[in-house]
Amino acid sequence: MKPPEHLVSYLKENDKFYIVPHMFPDGDALGSALALESALCTIGKKAIVFSRDPVPDMFNFLPEASRIAPISDLKSSEDAVLVLVDCNAPNRADIERVKFKYTIVIDHHETESSFGDIRWVVPKSPATGLMIYFLIKSLGVEISGAIALNLYAAIAVDTGIFRYSNTTAESLTVAADLISKGVRPSFVADRLHNNWTEAKFMLLKHMLNNLEIQKNTAICFITSDMLKRTGAKPEDTENFVNFPIMINTIKVAALFKETGKDFWKASLRSRGDVNVAKIAEKLGGGGHKNAAGFRITGDIETSKKALMESLDGIGESSGGD
Amino acid sequence: MKPPEHLVSYLKENDKFYIVPHMFPDGDALGSALALESALCTIGKKAIVFSRDPVPDMFNFLPEASRIAPISDLKSSEDAVLVLVDCNAPNRADIERVKFKYTIVIDHHETESSFGDIRWVVPKSPATGLMIYFLIKSLGVEISGAIALNLYAAIAVDTGIFRYSNTTAESLTVAADLISKGVRPSFVADRLHNNWTEAKFMLLKHMLNNLEIQKNTAICFITSDMLKRTGAKPEDTENFVNFPIMINTIKVAALFKETGKDFWKASLRSRGDVNVAKIAEKLGGGGHKNAAGFRITGDIETSKKALMESLDGIGESSGGD
Repeated sequence: MKPPEHLVSYLKENDKFYIVPHMFPDGDALGSALALESALCTIGKKAIVFSRDPVPDMFNFLPEASRIAPISDLKSSEDAVLVLVDCNAPNRADIERVKFKYTIVIDHHETESSFGDIRWVVPKSPATGLMIYFLIKSLGVEISGAIALNLYAAIAVDTGIFRYSNTTAESLTVAADLISKGVRPSFVADRLHNNWTEAKFMLLKHMLNNLEIQKNTAICFITSDMLKRTGAKPEDTENFVNFPIMINTIKVAALFKETGKDFWKASLRSRGDVNVAKIAEKLGGGGHKNAAGFRITGDIETSKKALMESLDGIGESSGGD
Repeated sequence: MKPPEHLVSYLKENDKFYIVPHMFPDGDALGSALALESALCTIGKKAIVFSRDPVPDMFNFLPEASRIAPISDLKSSEDAVLVLVDCNAPNRADIERVKFKYTIVIDHHETESSFGDIRWVVPKSPATGLMIYFLIKSLGVEISGAIALNLYAAIAVDTGIFRYSNTTAESLTVAADLISKGVRPSFVADRLHNNWTEAKFMLLKHMLNNLEIQKNTAICFITSDMLKRTGAKPEDTENFVNFPIMINTIKVAALFKETGKDFWKASLRSRGDVNVAKIAEKLGGGGHKNAAGFRITGDIETSKKALMESLDGIGESSGGD
């Protein structure tokens, strides 16, 4: 991967950069922003990371994470360059109203807008962190231990620590270089995966207790009462729907999360060729082939039944895997 | 990593190899043996893999796994060379009584014996598969898709897919090369981690339901009755003790597995600097700093109490992590 030359020279020729990740930033957004900030500071630039939302607890191990400024400190500026990372439209970062001298976009998501005086968008890159690695190399900056940890975490988060289908040979080659700069892979894995609160763990236990399996489909639910009883947060449920997919006979997993009395937000996951985006569309939702969602109104049994009818044996008939 | 030159030339100069992994072979033992077999066959040698135990279901995706011969077919031979892989003593492979022209050991475990006319033992290698990769390169054999998948799986299994502390930069560089030969990382991850039987999943659920947390220690148990009710196999419990370690306040996790009426085999795991080998030793067992075990007699409550007394607040006082 090679960053555009005009991007590299623009960064070299200018002095003041405001780096902004997307709202509700994840490890790729934060690690990318922090690594770029460090690299620019190393070559004498003024660079600050601004975030709409605070750094989630699980990412507070990222070097310099405590230096991130709140978005309320971000003012229009005639001499600062905006660098939007891991997203490609200002509304994704909640900064529509702020104006800059110049704007740069560095992202690996499909393009949503044409925003940005310079746009470097590579949808096939598994992580923005991987792009930032090559950008930092092009700037001639030595990868420090802090930069290495931010970039390793960024790549690890977006590839599920090298388990997702977006994992490329290049991402492992870069990760190897980052380890040689001092990253301990087990430290990152521990922070990302062995960092559950007891409340979150107990919520998972409760969810597994209502797991129901019908025709290669696993269905479970989380009620507001379960959140209250365990003390877990709604965001704790983020990857829970992936657990039942561990069972080799399960083609579709569904998790219903209660958002109000008889209101549910359902997440769907599927294995291999089973397309849950189509199922979600039938129910007024959408998404990708293996990860989709929809909203539904009704009691839990009615909602489950609606899903099963939409599935119509899809999990059984498909080859999956 | 560089294989000894006399090993490479010995393999080149001889023609008939019996390759034997350890008993109850895991992914590293099987992937290493199969990759070496393919490589030797590619350069015109006769090579056969013999295993004491059948290939576990979860590893039947390894290329050529179905060609592995049972150990009962392995006879003493005056013209065959034994290559013991992923172990370094004949009793680990249950082949003490068989005699060969010459014997070779390729392993990454600490030395248990001095067996082997040629011994290549590298305890700091994260996997035997990594050693076999460099050996195959030294033999001048092109890495085929089948060899790549066997080696990737071998390395993935022994590094917990690049999460354990043994993960090195070199192991990721090699994995990157194997991906470039056609390995799909998500396929391997899926086979290794999303390949649970429903019975195993239900057993985990039952185990979580008896999880008890006291003083940064998580304790759970699995009875024979739980195995019977779910239909799970004793080997299904292998990594279950790692689940409670996901909780960030847990320093020690213990799983008691019933081996007979009031007989328990306990597995211990710890986080960071907490040394469970010392705890296990107090109770007549042993192991490593972060993974140890012991056997105990008594009802479950008495057994738990004995453990808690041996811990004596060790989880609380240590900094862990």
